[in-house]
Amino acid sequence: NPQLNPTTSEPPTPPTDHRALAQTHHLFITSPYSPGSPLLLPNGAYVFQKLQAFLRAQYPQFGFQEVITPTIYKKSLWETSGHWDNYAEDMFSVQGRGAMGQTQNAETGQDEEFGLKPMNCPGHCLLFRDEIKSYRDLPIRYADFSALHRNEISGALTGLTRVRRFHQDDAHIFCRPDQILQEIEQTLKFVGMVYDTFGLGPYKLLLSTRPVDHFIGTISEWDKAEAQLTTALNNSGREWALNEGDGAFYGPKIDIILKDSHGKEHQTATIQLDFQLPQRFNLQYQASPDELSSLPSEAPSSEDAALEPGNRRPVIVHRAIYGSLERFMALLIEHYAGNYPFWLSPRPAIVLALNQDPETLSHVAYIQSVLSGMESVETSEEARVQAPSTGEPVPPKPRPQKLNTIHLPIDADTTARPIGKKIAEAQMKKYNHIVVVGPKEVKSRSMTLEVVNQPHGGATEEVLVKILGRGLESGERK
Amino acid sequence: NPQLNPTTSEPPTPPTDHRALAQTHHLFITSPYSPGSPLLLPNGAYVFQKLQAFLRAQYPQFGFQEVITPTIYKKSLWETSGHWDNYAEDMFSVQGRGAMGQTQNAETGQDEEFGLKPMNCPGHCLLFRDEIKSYRDLPIRYADFSALHRNEISGALTGLTRVRRFHQDDAHIFCRPDQILQEIEQTLKFVGMVYDTFGLGPYKLLLSTRPVDHFIGTISEWDKAEAQLTTALNNSGREWALNEGDGAFYGPKIDIILKDSHGKEHQTATIQLDFQLPQRFNLQYQASPDELSSLPSEAPSSEDAALEPGNRRPVIVHRAIYGSLERFMALLIEHYAGNYPFWLSPRPAIVLALNQDPETLSHVAYIQSVLSGMESVETSEEARVQAPSTGEPVPPKPRPQKLNTIHLPIDADTTARPIGKKIAEAQMKKYNHIVVVGPKEVKSRSMTLEVVNQPHGGATEEVLVKILGRGLESGERK
Ligand SMILES: [Zn+2]
Ligand SMILES: [Zn+2]
Repeated sequence: NPQLNPTTSEPPTPPTDHRALAQTHHLFITSPYSPGSPLLLPNGAYVFQKLQAFLRAQYPQFGFQEVITPTIYKKSLWETSGHWDNYAEDMFSVQGRGAMGQTQNAETGQDEEFGLKPMNCPGHCLLFRDEIKSYRDLPIRYADFSALHRNEISGALTGLTRVRRFHQDDAHIFCRPDQILQEIEQTLKFVGMVYDTFGLGPYKLLLSTRPVDHFIGTISEWDKAEAQLTTALNNSGREWALNEGDGAFYGPKIDIILKDSHGKEHQTATIQLDFQLPQRFNLQYQASPDELSSLPSEAPSSEDAALEPGNRRPVIVHRAIYGSLERFMALLIEHYAGNYPFWLSPRPAIVLALNQDPETLSHVAYIQSVLSGMESVETSEEARVQAPSTGEPVPPKPRPQKLNTIHLPIDADTTARPIGKKIAEAQMKKYNHIVVVGPKEVKSRSMTLEVVNQPHGGATEEVLVKILGRGLESGERK
Repeated sequence: NPQLNPTTSEPPTPPTDHRALAQTHHLFITSPYSPGSPLLLPNGAYVFQKLQAFLRAQYPQFGFQEVITPTIYKKSLWETSGHWDNYAEDMFSVQGRGAMGQTQNAETGQDEEFGLKPMNCPGHCLLFRDEIKSYRDLPIRYADFSALHRNEISGALTGLTRVRRFHQDDAHIFCRPDQILQEIEQTLKFVGMVYDTFGLGPYKLLLSTRPVDHFIGTISEWDKAEAQLTTALNNSGREWALNEGDGAFYGPKIDIILKDSHGKEHQTATIQLDFQLPQRFNLQYQASPDELSSLPSEAPSSEDAALEPGNRRPVIVHRAIYGSLERFMALLIEHYAGNYPFWLSPRPAIVLALNQDPETLSHVAYIQSVLSGMESVETSEEARVQAPSTGEPVPPKPRPQKLNTIHLPIDADTTARPIGKKIAEAQMKKYNHIVVVGPKEVKSRSMTLEVVNQPHGGATEEVLVKILGRGLESGERK
């Protein structure tokens, strides 16, 4: 799309800020009671959950399994992980306000304070330590959408981009050292698939390698890992660059730098190798026969004295595709400038009543229900006799809706205003589809559909036909 | 089901504890680093998310809209809501560990501590205050699955039933006083539908009314609210009882008391009216013409001096159907005793290889992929030429999976062990379906299916046929 990625030398127009665009769609509010923790309104929560659902739908084919882990852990966990000391400025501490020091049946460290988690990794290490025994169990890939907290200074807080509470599409891959190549290749494919879906890009990949001075593990371990990362990058078919010596002391990494439609660069996804956490948590697995027959120089380094005989340490890959979901949402808000693709849109369609006739209003309600994906409800005798004391018509008895139905938030405008006004308002509110229902549609049991905002991408058209199409077989379509 | 609800006078056998049953399925672990915050393993997270997805699928027909709200709020919010003083023993406080007192661009109350939320209501009041203006916007129903924290003493912590961190299927209905009846009726229907789906019950409903001494609001307000609750209970067709004078000082409530298959009673769902929070947060809406023409005795009480002319206070209904998802999970674990219905089962099916022939293993992989709901992947030339440097076969290029596909966690056992051993192990692990693949199945491109655990309920059979049935058109079925 040449329009999205101008190659001319003219300075690109800066995008409308995501906070202003978000107001049009009522996506979120902020509050002085929760600085840095935006409150997502129904429309914002809808977009957030679509992003989450999209990624979740991809997890099985990439072998990720979701887990649900605590929000607060005892200080001693963060001391083990190193966060308590190295991340102090960014962490929140948590304490019970009630009576402490109660000792009967008390837990170890009863009075110990907690840390509010800034990252999921230590919790995932606990899962690994309890569950994983052998090389046959690897790789294991834990995904986690938990809320995370980092104490940014208040002056820096902005909308969805600089926050204190956020959610990552976080995952940790625990693998054998010889599985790095395959895991990184798959992760790069995952990144490509996701960014293609949203029409984002171009992006470049940046490999940061072993620092000269301060690093853990052996040079041989680093060399092998970096060789696998390099191969994966070469095989990706994407542009990539080397940031020599710029890796963290605990492992090399690949950053994904996304250029938005206005030329601004965003660091979104990251793939970070980690040789350190497995040591700190003393994670080990029973080595494979191949590993056991490896040369002495391949044997565990001296730092790994805690390894039991025949065991090896896994490598951890921290990876996020969206990065922060909040920040990714902000990026998409500006990317789409309010014209969301149909499947992601908090306003996929609105049904407008042409007049106030009861038949029209009833057909509006019917169309709204069909488009929203609601399964037909019972209107049985049983349901009607349930309310003998009131003279009111009783709402039909609810029926369980299927789990694989996608319900769309379809709005209706039945106010007594001229249809031109209603259409103008619906266009301003950027509904993807505007459906008008009047006497003609009532008569033919159909609807007149205006596609206002073109959906983006191929997957969307499929959704459009399949989902919006339900019940419309007999309807008109423009 | 007479077996589940014995009417004999014999003492029922106590159920196996949920913690023991949960071990069979690897549902969760606990850790001394996070007492009261269990870590859900992939299987536990799967069940948790199915419960969540089921309720989410029902929300549109009941008019609930999900929101996403902060985990920590400034102390002053909890002072406004009354929790800071009245709930002190149960609350956790939160403080930034970094340098505080920084004043440049500082937020109000920069150094103020935070409270870790024990309830969602105050956050929802903030949403109401920002978004809702008129009687026409009511009722508004905010649903929220946020993690909540309450500081139970450590001696009381048990598995999933007594925890410090939990999730409610929480919702707050903000409505006009004259909308209480309809909202309560719908909520009771919702409760019935959900409990029927899980085969839970019988349950009884318990109405707690205005305390004699200490209450807020006028007696007329209480009388009208209680009359609507009574009508709703009568219309429900369910057994209910009166707990006179046992309501909270801020409003009457309905408790749902569930009797489990072993005769033990559980308090699960609650429907709590609240006249207080709307006052504390000074929530108001522009009254309807009907409300404005009401008699003087119906006018706002003296406590409502903060109301602007022509405005009224909404009533809040706090409601949860499952209650705590963790506790509900524990209840279901014992209810099903490990034999989960298919749609909820973390082990819906396993595919066993009869031998180690490459054709068999390849067909096992195919069957596993079909049953899991994976859409076919590309195996194009393009995908194959992507890896020029390695001689290895390249995994096919991933394709975006649709959002409305239900992916099942289908396992496979391809170990070189006798088939009898594999079947016995699969039965012990309580897979719903055991699929055996050998030369016969390879030849006919089919599978042999054993249904081990009967699914519960009608919805499940539908799922079974539709979901498990995909790709099986040509397959054998026992
Ligand atoms: Zn991590
Ligand atoms: Zn509440």
